[in-house]
Amino acid sequence: METVAKENMFYSFSKDREAAVTVPSGTTLTLETYDCFENQVTEEGDNYGEIDWDRINPATGPVYIEEAEPGDCLKVTINKIELADYGMMAVGKGLGVMKEEMEDLIFKKIPLQQNKGDFGYGISLDLNPMIGVIGVAPEGEAVSNGTPGDHGGNMDNKKIEEGAVLYFPVSAPGALFGLGDMHAAMGDGEVGVTGIEAAGRATVTFEVIKNKQLSMPLLENETEIGVISSAATLEEGIHRATSFLAGLLARESDMDKNNAVMFLSAAGQVEVCQVVDPLVTVRMMLQKKDLEPLKISFL
Amino acid sequence: METVAKENMFYSFSKDREAAVTVPSGTTLTLETYDCFENQVTEEGDNYGEIDWDRINPATGPVYIEEAEPGDCLKVTINKIELADYGMMAVGKGLGVMKEEMEDLIFKKIPLQQNKGDFGYGISLDLNPMIGVIGVAPEGEAVSNGTPGDHGGNMDNKKIEEGAVLYFPVSAPGALFGLGDMHAAMGDGEVGVTGIEAAGRATVTFEVIKNKQLSMPLLENETEIGVISSAATLEEGIHRATSFLAGLLARESDMDKNNAVMFLSAAGQVEVCQVVDPLVTVRMMLQKKDLEPLKISFL
Repeated sequence: METVAKENMFYSFSKDREAAVTVPSGTTLTLETYDCFENQVTEEGDNYGEIDWDRINPATGPVYIEEAEPGDCLKVTINKIELADYGMMAVGKGLGVMKEEMEDLIFKKIPLQQNKGDFGYGISLDLNPMIGVIGVAPEGEAVSNGTPGDHGGNMDNKKIEEGAVLYFPVSAPGALFGLGDMHAAMGDGEVGVTGIEAAGRATVTFEVIKNKQLSMPLLENETEIGVISSAATLEEGIHRATSFLAGLLARESDMDKNNAVMFLSAAGQVEVCQVVDPLVTVRMMLQKKDLEPLKISFL
Repeated sequence: METVAKENMFYSFSKDREAAVTVPSGTTLTLETYDCFENQVTEEGDNYGEIDWDRINPATGPVYIEEAEPGDCLKVTINKIELADYGMMAVGKGLGVMKEEMEDLIFKKIPLQQNKGDFGYGISLDLNPMIGVIGVAPEGEAVSNGTPGDHGGNMDNKKIEEGAVLYFPVSAPGALFGLGDMHAAMGDGEVGVTGIEAAGRATVTFEVIKNKQLSMPLLENETEIGVISSAATLEEGIHRATSFLAGLLARESDMDKNNAVMFLSAAGQVEVCQVVDPLVTVRMMLQKKDLEPLKISFL
């Protein structure tokens, strides 16, 4: 299987970016990634003054998928996530939901092994390896890797983990896919501004679904399917997600809009991804078993 | 065991309300409850024009717990939740996150049996019986049962279910506890404005913890403990919850604030309760196993 080295990286998703590699639909690739600090910080005692803040959230790629054209959908299956044996965290003034109350910029190193992270203080955290930045070129202007959107990007979504399947709207020839910013663990919200940030390798499979217009990214796992919505506020993100799913249910099933909204109220789970990026991100998830009688397709 | 009949009800939590029943700390009571519409709507074909909208979200009580004084904490264990054999849902103009897009007020009846709700369309929803309105008299002015706050109230929190333990700050002699507005099922967010609303009976045990100041409600279950935060926006609610927990960790353990915020970023789960009441509500939950090495007390 082909590996894309982490030196093939970029800091913004753009239609105009030259591909690092070109592959046909159906290809499985392994992408090596830096951590979100581009591995500039490897010890708690580093000289933080020397960090280059322009080198944050690198994504590996872009990958050009031959069949992908605007108006198609790119299906990305996360087969495997492998991580380095340590992760880094940070907090500081102006960062995270506690930005006003924090002071110096502090980095903390977390040893990782056997699916546990040693936080210190005797605390051994369960890991939930996940991909923070993942997406395709957006329709319009380039978007910094730090910002999430309907093209994907820095969604920091805990459920983008091994076994998850993502669907992205294709806006540029080849889709121009990239991923990076893996976390060994992250709580929903990512309130401090980082998860346990780690370099690693992700093995993913690409499939182009032709002529399937999609306006927002979808996320599917063994039991659930839902939509990922980024916006200026959580309330706006929730409204977008609800409106998307209610519209889809009313269009694709026998439910009228009233019943679709009641169904979402009873059975749809609004979950926070992150509240610390330039836009915030929510997901709204449904149980596949509840949808099965409706025989609808999300695509 | 004593039962408090649902006719002992009120529409706002208030220090000045006369108790329906007075009991010592340690008492277990069963409280009968109306549904959130005070059982005014029992069929899909009702004449909705005749609903009295002043009779919404009745809570049964208040219960005066003898030992409770301002500055104490009231521990409430939810032993059992029993529900009627049907639930009601509603959507309409001005209600829920889709308020602008909805039209007529529609009620839907959901038969409930064997822990399933028949939504129609072949969909059999798993139930998650929970209590929407639960709390004590607030410190200041009376608060309508429709509004959540640090006294509790209409928090619409899916984890207030059988087996959950809540801790409320006591602000009035006797605490003046009440509960109502049970849901047979509700998705996090409650985006349409109702869960599957049902009348029922809740069996709860009260314990007064003397001289324990608490500023926000806590929620504990078998594996987790966390805080419930209501505010004008989700972002503000998340900031309040994070600040509360970071302060508690920094005060009660060896962690400094930097480490406390990093711990919350990696291991704290921000979860949405509801976004459709006059204030919105989040919870921030921690795994008890992660806290165990810190030997801290939340009270």
